[in-house]
Amino acid sequence: MGERLVVIGGTAAGLSAASKAKRLKPDMDITVYERSGYVSYGACGLPYYVGGMIEEADDLVSLDVNTLTNKRGIPTFIHHEVTKIDRQAKTVAVRDLDTGKEFEQGYDKLVIATGATPIVPEIPGARAEGVHCLRTVEDGIALKSRVAQGASKAVIIGGGFIGLETAEELTQAGMKVTVVEAMPRLLPFLTEEYAAAIQNELEKHGVEVCLNATAAEILCQDQRAAGVKTSDGRCFEADMVLFSIGVRPASQLAAACGLELGLKDAIVVDEHQRTSDDSIYACGDCVQMKHLVTGEACYVPLGTTANKQGRIAGENIGGGNGTFKGVLGSQVTKIFDLYAASTGLTEQQAVRAGYDAVSSSITKGDRASYYPGGGQNQLTLILDRKSGKLLGAQGIGTETIAGRMNVLATAITAGMTVMEVNELDLVYSPSVAPVYDPILIAASQALKHVK
Amino acid sequence: MGERLVVIGGTAAGLSAASKAKRLKPDMDITVYERSGYVSYGACGLPYYVGGMIEEADDLVSLDVNTLTNKRGIPTFIHHEVTKIDRQAKTVAVRDLDTGKEFEQGYDKLVIATGATPIVPEIPGARAEGVHCLRTVEDGIALKSRVAQGASKAVIIGGGFIGLETAEELTQAGMKVTVVEAMPRLLPFLTEEYAAAIQNELEKHGVEVCLNATAAEILCQDQRAAGVKTSDGRCFEADMVLFSIGVRPASQLAAACGLELGLKDAIVVDEHQRTSDDSIYACGDCVQMKHLVTGEACYVPLGTTANKQGRIAGENIGGGNGTFKGVLGSQVTKIFDLYAASTGLTEQQAVRAGYDAVSSSITKGDRASYYPGGGQNQLTLILDRKSGKLLGAQGIGTETIAGRMNVLATAITAGMTVMEVNELDLVYSPSVAPVYDPILIAASQALKHVK
Repeated sequence: MGERLVVIGGTAAGLSAASKAKRLKPDMDITVYERSGYVSYGACGLPYYVGGMIEEADDLVSLDVNTLTNKRGIPTFIHHEVTKIDRQAKTVAVRDLDTGKEFEQGYDKLVIATGATPIVPEIPGARAEGVHCLRTVEDGIALKSRVAQGASKAVIIGGGFIGLETAEELTQAGMKVTVVEAMPRLLPFLTEEYAAAIQNELEKHGVEVCLNATAAEILCQDQRAAGVKTSDGRCFEADMVLFSIGVRPASQLAAACGLELGLKDAIVVDEHQRTSDDSIYACGDCVQMKHLVTGEACYVPLGTTANKQGRIAGENIGGGNGTFKGVLGSQVTKIFDLYAASTGLTEQQAVRAGYDAVSSSITKGDRASYYPGGGQNQLTLILDRKSGKLLGAQGIGTETIAGRMNVLATAITAGMTVMEVNELDLVYSPSVAPVYDPILIAASQALKHVK
Repeated sequence: MGERLVVIGGTAAGLSAASKAKRLKPDMDITVYERSGYVSYGACGLPYYVGGMIEEADDLVSLDVNTLTNKRGIPTFIHHEVTKIDRQAKTVAVRDLDTGKEFEQGYDKLVIATGATPIVPEIPGARAEGVHCLRTVEDGIALKSRVAQGASKAVIIGGGFIGLETAEELTQAGMKVTVVEAMPRLLPFLTEEYAAAIQNELEKHGVEVCLNATAAEILCQDQRAAGVKTSDGRCFEADMVLFSIGVRPASQLAAACGLELGLKDAIVVDEHQRTSDDSIYACGDCVQMKHLVTGEACYVPLGTTANKQGRIAGENIGGGNGTFKGVLGSQVTKIFDLYAASTGLTEQQAVRAGYDAVSSSITKGDRASYYPGGGQNQLTLILDRKSGKLLGAQGIGTETIAGRMNVLATAITAGMTVMEVNELDLVYSPSVAPVYDPILIAASQALKHVK
């Protein structure tokens, strides 16, 4: 029998780890346990499944249990919950959620890829029928069946990007949607101006946005959600309520067996994705990571990171020497016709991290002015006044903002100054850019702030 | 009277230099002479004007003589040709092409921004009516009026990107178009596979592509072009012929006054854009530049570079200390529904430059597989096997290839290896990218070649 690897969690991080380890050590005896009924699904696609753009839940799944178990040689079990890790004995306790049967399984190496859990506040009615989160495929199916049953009014608590993408999708499915956000603005990773533009885009499409308010109570009729009462005393009718106020690391198993926890109780790992126990790796939304700009610990749960960290964990378990250097928190979202993206630090974060930070904004067409079509890109660069170093960027506009944000993410990773960004030799054709790309305009504007 | 600056050439490079110098030294006495009838036009937009997508020639012009002269304080003269530079006397001889009047003008500093001249081979009929180039607005007007007069068949000699963009535009204007290319393939800055895909895209839209052939003779009727006879003996009917086989630096003035010339007789400049004469700067398509990867001299005439070099020349004339580091030759074009882009070295160029070069290619969707719409991106990375250093990249696919090529251009500029590119934290949302962006897939494939 080969070395035994047990992987807890069968989505991005866990399966990346399992697959990479198997490729490097084909003899390894790998078992994956997944609590939900689905493995290898793209959770970021759930809003589009709920809204109907994606028809079948299976479309979100890239690998099924059968393929993993029988073709890839990675026995994978759904509806199996790991309930305990015994580090001394090197065993995990597993419960088959379908049969209730419990059993123990030994490991030589263990991967914790338990992900994150949506936060649901303990307010009256929070557990009523018709109150949802959107994290698993089952969540998606439940939400979608609510739409199919004729739900016509939704209240979404939390104006982060999952909440807003779902607001878009439910609106396009014909529902009346209200978004309730505790902060005085949406999407805190954007500038206030860009967040206001997103809000405007939502309102233009009929979404009601209610800021500075939290959900105080889920109003129920016959034990079913019928509305939301907010902290400022307003009431919104709803036959469907969605909580999307964020997630917390699902680190209870790790905590119970005494692994070191960090920010928000995320599992602490080194750059090899190893926990404080040499035999245990952790990756994905349950771990703390390092920010590439500040070098400090952060918790930014994103699918891209989960996949990469899983691959690194698998590489090291498979005998390699991979390292995960950290994150910029690069992200993008599309809300109706407006795309918003960010990378690196916000101005606030940069000031907090001790930089002499300033932000500089521009608006520029994304094609030659004389070329038909296209639209605007708005870009904000955050830089250090002393060194000119680029620390972060935010943008809204057409789909092309995504590629431009990636250029800036690359520049930040390389430690470039805005002077260096200003000199980049970028592609040009009237059909895809102005002769001075918005990135260059942004850099040329930003470098005026450098002391 | 302030210091006198004379600028020869009133498009991208020349006007960038004049404008920057004026901003830095408002007292400077600046005069711009432009031989053609237009200043400050986007030559890259000419194909779209000819084809009708852009209606008026003036739409291509961002600043007119009146604005420059009266609002910006930069007296600008069109139809004025500088015929001689006297470096001893520090004067230029100028001819007013409308009146024939000649005069001398003294300078303290001189900018040569004379651009490049389309190459027209000395074959029978090359000067006949109906034979065109596409470089100036006048060229565009002549070509467009030919279309308006009912020309229905065009032969385009040269399958570079200006030729192919014009082929697209003339086809969309209803003409039957044949492209004649001397090489066994189109667009040498792309891989053969990508060039073949572009050829297929052209043929799909009815453009005839004739490879391995040059124009041997322009066949004429009544002194008007009526067809093209190719080197392989074929004849193509045409009531319009376009030469787009490349340009050469318009460096005759510089040569005549003894300035140092380099590759293809392009003017040699230092990184301050200064020529071998301290008082004379040169910038744009008439100068030699440095390649950022090889550090060697190259000649890559592009509008983006012309603008940047002009700005640097202006900055230094204005008392600053700007440097132009060099180019990657980043470029992009759209041919019907296919976008093609490249940056840095091709595999061939990399081998020639002494690298242990290899290229590595991938094809990947540009959105999450389950998200509707989108299309493919094909990416080829050229890297050094020994160090893993990224040396160049080419790609075809949807419009998003442009942003991805810019990421790679940024990575090359920063000296990144494909291992480092593989770790980039890029934005992700199902609507704009797969969770592993095509860039990351390409890098992860490429790093397998690193020794």
